[in-house]
Amino acid sequence: MDNRPIGVFDSGLGGLTVAKELMNHLPHESIIYFGDTGRVPYGTRSRETIIKYAASDINFLLTQDVKAIVIACGTASSVALGYALQHYDIPIVGVVASTAAAAASATVNKKVGIIGTSGTISSGSYERALKQLDDQITTHARACPLFVPLVENGYTDNAVARLVAQDYLSPLKDSGVDTIILGCTHYPLLKGVISDIMGKDTALIDSGAPMARQVGKLLADHDMLAEGTAQYSYFVSDTVDNFSRYGSLFMQRELSDSVSRIDIERY
Amino acid sequence: MDNRPIGVFDSGLGGLTVAKELMNHLPHESIIYFGDTGRVPYGTRSRETIIKYAASDINFLLTQDVKAIVIACGTASSVALGYALQHYDIPIVGVVASTAAAAASATVNKKVGIIGTSGTISSGSYERALKQLDDQITTHARACPLFVPLVENGYTDNAVARLVAQDYLSPLKDSGVDTIILGCTHYPLLKGVISDIMGKDTALIDSGAPMARQVGKLLADHDMLAEGTAQYSYFVSDTVDNFSRYGSLFMQRELSDSVSRIDIERY
Repeated sequence: MDNRPIGVFDSGLGGLTVAKELMNHLPHESIIYFGDTGRVPYGTRSRETIIKYAASDINFLLTQDVKAIVIACGTASSVALGYALQHYDIPIVGVVASTAAAAASATVNKKVGIIGTSGTISSGSYERALKQLDDQITTHARACPLFVPLVENGYTDNAVARLVAQDYLSPLKDSGVDTIILGCTHYPLLKGVISDIMGKDTALIDSGAPMARQVGKLLADHDMLAEGTAQYSYFVSDTVDNFSRYGSLFMQRELSDSVSRIDIERY
Repeated sequence: MDNRPIGVFDSGLGGLTVAKELMNHLPHESIIYFGDTGRVPYGTRSRETIIKYAASDINFLLTQDVKAIVIACGTASSVALGYALQHYDIPIVGVVASTAAAAASATVNKKVGIIGTSGTISSGSYERALKQLDDQITTHARACPLFVPLVENGYTDNAVARLVAQDYLSPLKDSGVDTIILGCTHYPLLKGVISDIMGKDTALIDSGAPMARQVGKLLADHDMLAEGTAQYSYFVSDTVDNFSRYGSLFMQRELSDSVSRIDIERY
């Protein structure tokens, strides 16, 4: 048993979609969430900068006595997990492996589409994970850089969202994929539009549930599951003003938990 | 005479549209440009964070022995100029005053529209500047948060850009403005679409030329104009990879000048 919290970080507040699944699946686990709202987005930045930012995010979480770290951000998981595993002793998991495994289980025709930020797609992380799981799988990847700004501006179900999604997804539809990995924490909010374009039979795989299962297994294997009542704390690197609004959007419930600002550039 | 360079900074590379006008109008002036590509965008962040970032940008430029500082970023000019003028001794100019003056000269019916980032619009900077110039002017302001991502993804003249612009600009068109301030360095790239929606008779005022005239006057008044051959250097806070591509987009010419990366979090 280990009642210390799990540290979860994301480039911003999108990772709350992952935190929500952790809360649902592991109701006794306390969570410290850090959203790097002062430096969001990561998806358009260079590999070097993403690694630097992820390292400071981990350094901050380590000051909070966490027992494990979850990288909820698709970009940071794709680009910085290798670095993190080499440089830190604590258990650290990213979203790529578990999400790829869920997609490999879901596909019937072995054609899997991958959508994500520019950083995620150019890393090739999901392709590599899928090939390792099953070398019969063929992949079709597409960066969708406008999806994050669309979601953050509430354009999740209107003509603009549909037109942009059409642009990005047409090549995936033409390639005949039966499964799509939503490789960014913002994309679950566009599921309706994506499903309309791809058709109801296309499986849309997001990171939350697979990640929560992986974390549960990891903690159980190491006898580190918590007992008792979970506590949730949130930290951000810009002011806390927008937290409630965006937090509620991504958590799909009202948030009244404590949220604090930190100066991430010190870590 | 003062042959030291002018320091110019922006949240990213959009400010190159202003640097270009400085180069055209003041061909003897050397320029040190800093684009905060590791922390872009500023327009969606809090007032506190924008001021903190602008201060570090100025601190960096001061290490380069600049004779004056130009804030090319509409958001930083709107939010952080007052702070900068209070805390630094060097001449510092933002884009708001000169752009507002150009708009006040251009309007005939005294109805001026203002578009910019969320940070710029919520600051009310352009409204205040216009009212001070002419209290008969009525203003109609609108944040256009998707314009920057559209431009950065090359969506400057397609159906998506037109649909988003229609959404944002319809209330301005209905209000009968005859002049619009393009309050963000990215927006000149959307001039075609904006003009199509507003009509050819609407004057579109961007920051570059008014700012260059203001800087020329400032330097002349203080006997600080340079002579001889100008030199241009560029610094960014993310890797330099994208500089040539984006730089060419905003400068509308090929860029072969030197560009270096700095760690802005140290300043």
